[in-house]
Amino acid sequence: MKTIALITDFGTVDGFVGSMKGVISAIAPQAQVIDISHESSPQHTHHAAFVLWSTYKYFPEQTVFVVVVDPGVGSERRIIMVEEIEGKKFLVPENGILEFILPELINPKAYHINNPEYWLSRVSSTFHGRDIFAPVAAHLVNGTRGEDLGVRIELSIPESPFRDINASTIEQEGRILHADRFGNLITNLRPRIERPDDLSHLSLEIGNRTIGAIKKTYADGEYGELIALAGSSGLIEVAVRNSSAQQMLGLRIGDPVIIRSS
Amino acid sequence: MKTIALITDFGTVDGFVGSMKGVISAIAPQAQVIDISHESSPQHTHHAAFVLWSTYKYFPEQTVFVVVVDPGVGSERRIIMVEEIEGKKFLVPENGILEFILPELINPKAYHINNPEYWLSRVSSTFHGRDIFAPVAAHLVNGTRGEDLGVRIELSIPESPFRDINASTIEQEGRILHADRFGNLITNLRPRIERPDDLSHLSLEIGNRTIGAIKKTYADGEYGELIALAGSSGLIEVAVRNSSAQQMLGLRIGDPVIIRSS
Amino acid sequence: MKTIALITDFGTVDGFVGSMKGVISAIAPQAQVIDISHESSPQHTHHAAFVLWSTYKYFPEQTVFVVVVDPGVGSERRIIMVEEIEGKKFLVPENGILEFILPELINPKAYHINNPEYWLSRVSSTFHGRDIFAPVAAHLVNGTRGEDLGVRIELSIPESPFRDINASTIEQEGRILHADRFGNLITNLRPRIERPDDLSHLSLEIGNRTIGAIKKTYADGEYGELIALAGSSGLIEVAVRNSSAQQMLGLRIGDPVIIRSS
Repeated sequence: MKTIALITDFGTVDGFVGSMKGVISAIAPQAQVIDISHESSPQHTHHAAFVLWSTYKYFPEQTVFVVVVDPGVGSERRIIMVEEIEGKKFLVPENGILEFILPELINPKAYHINNPEYWLSRVSSTFHGRDIFAPVAAHLVNGTRGEDLGVRIELSIPESPFRDINASTIEQEGRILHADRFGNLITNLRPRIERPDDLSHLSLEIGNRTIGAIKKTYADGEYGELIALAGSSGLIEVAVRNSSAQQMLGLRIGDPVIIRSS
Repeated sequence: MKTIALITDFGTVDGFVGSMKGVISAIAPQAQVIDISHESSPQHTHHAAFVLWSTYKYFPEQTVFVVVVDPGVGSERRIIMVEEIEGKKFLVPENGILEFILPELINPKAYHINNPEYWLSRVSSTFHGRDIFAPVAAHLVNGTRGEDLGVRIELSIPESPFRDINASTIEQEGRILHADRFGNLITNLRPRIERPDDLSHLSLEIGNRTIGAIKKTYADGEYGELIALAGSSGLIEVAVRNSSAQQMLGLRIGDPVIIRSS
Repeated sequence: MKTIALITDFGTVDGFVGSMKGVISAIAPQAQVIDISHESSPQHTHHAAFVLWSTYKYFPEQTVFVVVVDPGVGSERRIIMVEEIEGKKFLVPENGILEFILPELINPKAYHINNPEYWLSRVSSTFHGRDIFAPVAAHLVNGTRGEDLGVRIELSIPESPFRDINASTIEQEGRILHADRFGNLITNLRPRIERPDDLSHLSLEIGNRTIGAIKKTYADGEYGELIALAGSSGLIEVAVRNSSAQQMLGLRIGDPVIIRSS
């Protein structure tokens, strides 16, 4: 049983995702299709980039990840497939969606997916998810190789977006990477520590607030209290127990944070 | 592996769809169940009719489509199953949901699904999705025939809702069939052309606006510009790049459009 | 093919559920994962308790139900697994989620799930759904027994939340258990009758309204009329045809209702 994991901005009201699954089911009926999210912001590829990064490690080897957040559909942007040897495959429009995972992949190889033999026979100008991504993903699951689906291309690996902090950190700047549905604000500050206490000397500045010692879990905060903790994605996040830190602080993706010894 | 594809108005907050899948899983554990949409408007069967039409072609032969948008549940409305020979099957309440696909099906046969042997032993008055549709769909996947599930009925095929346009079109009236989650307005005007340029002589009147040459893709419009294009469903649609044509125009399903030589 | 059924409050915007499914897919690739709801209220376990109760009977024997509505994650609350012999299994935080089903289970056995051998190697403080629940569910599907996953514990069975009514009922007090997405208000009053007419002597008091004879289905009400009927979950519910009883009455979970001979 091979797995295809989907991230799109298609929502679930119309039949866009259903069409993609129909196409996959017709070509690779044995594939197991898993929805990661279909609620990525239509125009904001950083949401999809973060959700992909925070989930891909938990999927089996050989999983084919398909991300269709593609404001440039129909324009000259390329569709690419990046794979680890004997490992995970990522089929995406070339628009930055892989920026968080590329620095972590081991010996990634990339292909420009340009061989229409593996696409639907009629390709619309506006729905490549159904007409190109879905059939190519199904053929990947069936064992078709990157060499057959397109041509090898060079890949430039971006710098890692993460900033490490540890027991000896004095000051580190960072930024807000993501806000989840609970309103928790996830930063790009990545603890590299043995014990949770190793960060107890640090406080976090965010908006015009300063938050003291890093907590262990949401339940360590009082109701309504703004706390910082090492979250489930392995990054420092800011939360309010039973409420939304994003609403309380009024901040946005990209806004700066500073962690410093207090 | 056989496929059951679901369209309902049950939403995903309560367990309605989960119950249906539980029933299917108990009777046909090998079935692959695909969600097309559970956000059809509870009382508007035209949404489900459009979503079914725009997706069914992409599913494998033998797929069993189940549509439970059923404001008349518990009343005298019939449940019917329509099938193509050796082909797709459609299990629906008899309330117009098949209006867009019936004119396209080849030699459809129809059955009134009235044999309670294949239903759950207790049938509620309000949730036939779980008590009748789900078990009947599972039995269909298991190979039970229409003759066993009910009795053959005559089917009246409605007129096609689509209006063809092509390189020699001078004027054609149409209407808005559907608005998708992005606010794109999909019309019933269907291009029958070889090359996208074949429609460049036509302009579209919608609301009190006139939109010039048909574009190829969303990216051909300026940000905020109202454009018309041949959409992914094979119909003319009206869109605003990175915004909602539905909100900009304030129009509704059924409102008229006119395409004419300019 | 074994089934895992999921109820969480994670929503579908972020990748939380996707991560859980990735973990399951890696450990038990043959498992069939069914979403019941991911829209339980983050802090209100009674929604999940009701949704679980109203759906679990419809799933095949051996189904593993996983409920992650867990405001106490990271605190001292236990994770437990309750199973019927040769039957269904329930993996939940110990916070009341099983209150509606426990009185119905036959000879349930319970385990405190505390053996980290079957968890992910790194367990976060805030996302036990991914790090503990998902791998334990996958191992349950693979045949690992409760004795291996944790230690046997005693279970106190709560009183049934339901109040029976029948043809000879004169008066019975009850309360609102649940409001579904259509705004129907489901009570804890459970008809135990042979024929729908057996309740026609009863009227329901709710808010400051009195509703006469129990109806059979939504279509028996006039548009806009407040009606009471025996709903699909086997309980008396209050509905308004094509509208929301919850909005019309402005009532909440736990508010009292009285049924009495009129």
